[in-house]
Amino acid sequence: MDFSSKLLENAVYEMSQLPGIGKRTALRLVLHLLKQPKEQTERLSNALLNLRSEIKFCENCHNISDVAVCEICANPKRDRSLVCVVEDIRDVMAIENTSQYKGLYHVLGGKISPMEGIGPQDLTIGSLVDKARKGEVKEFIFALSSTMEGDTTNFYIYKQLKGLDINTSTIARGIAVGDELEYADEVTLGRSILNRIPFEGSLKAN
Amino acid sequence: MDFSSKLLENAVYEMSQLPGIGKRTALRLVLHLLKQPKEQTERLSNALLNLRSEIKFCENCHNISDVAVCEICANPKRDRSLVCVVEDIRDVMAIENTSQYKGLYHVLGGKISPMEGIGPQDLTIGSLVDKARKGEVKEFIFALSSTMEGDTTNFYIYKQLKGLDINTSTIARGIAVGDELEYADEVTLGRSILNRIPFEGSLKAN
Repeated sequence: MDFSSKLLENAVYEMSQLPGIGKRTALRLVLHLLKQPKEQTERLSNALLNLRSEIKFCENCHNISDVAVCEICANPKRDRSLVCVVEDIRDVMAIENTSQYKGLYHVLGGKISPMEGIGPQDLTIGSLVDKARKGEVKEFIFALSSTMEGDTTNFYIYKQLKGLDINTSTIARGIAVGDELEYADEVTLGRSILNRIPFEGSLKAN
Repeated sequence: MDFSSKLLENAVYEMSQLPGIGKRTALRLVLHLLKQPKEQTERLSNALLNLRSEIKFCENCHNISDVAVCEICANPKRDRSLVCVVEDIRDVMAIENTSQYKGLYHVLGGKISPMEGIGPQDLTIGSLVDKARKGEVKEFIFALSSTMEGDTTNFYIYKQLKGLDINTSTIARGIAVGDELEYADEVTLGRSILNRIPFEGSLKAN
């Protein structure tokens, strides 16, 4: 693209560095900002700068937080013996929305992925093992996505925890509530039959 | 969405004010910036702030420009008697890419659209009429999109220019080069038959 303005070209280039935003979309977004009051651009830029410079990660669970220890870890009502291991803050938000979980979290910051050059040392696995050694945690719940990378990460952590007196579990995989059996994939349907639960137990979970 | 951080919530909110960016996409973009070096966020924010505070609009054609008179208007090789009327800078870029046009532009900044509350006074139509009165321009080429709003805007400008010794034309509508007739819509195909041109003339335009 041939811009008549270096300022515009630069703004479009930086915008197009965001994932999923191509040059054309970037131009559309930047021209939109030009048509809006100056204050909107200032609010957006300042919000991003403030976030990047002032954001903290919770000392305990590594979740994104404005303070040194996040709200969830600081809440005395949460069960400190239960720790749910997740990839990032989006998973924490999804689980919190269910209102079904009262334990703490441990945010790994990603999954082991040789393809993307992410090894165990890039994640917060060391801190997870330290947490396990302290003895307060009774159970780790693995809630990573069920992909090759997720399974690898689960297994790596499982091996690191060997020898420690700690239970590990993974969230249930099965047919989603409301889904029809005929459209389910075979692996999921197969697992949901193998891992069936007593009917009375299923009544408890609303 | 329930965020654990006000800083994050604020950044996601501002990002989701951009057109076509929902809350989920905004969260994905912001989390991406958090994973990248701090400098990337600074470059993006500064590029947007600089653009918004320092951008100028060309005194002559109202196109986005870093200087008071844009490169195209300042170029002595361009034909000053020919002015192409377009909606915004994207149209200028598209026409410049064809390398077929050697005249100047007049950027309206939008189309007359009662639905969006855009009237003639919100566009640079006054300046266009002033330009016409000065007598240097011999022909205005209307190159707005062929929608209800585009046609209304063309007609409004046409009426304003009445009585002045100025030619007006619109860009040719027809079957796109490389398109198959059977897939063309009826209006376009109908117009392209009515507005047929001598075969010899068609050989000139590469």
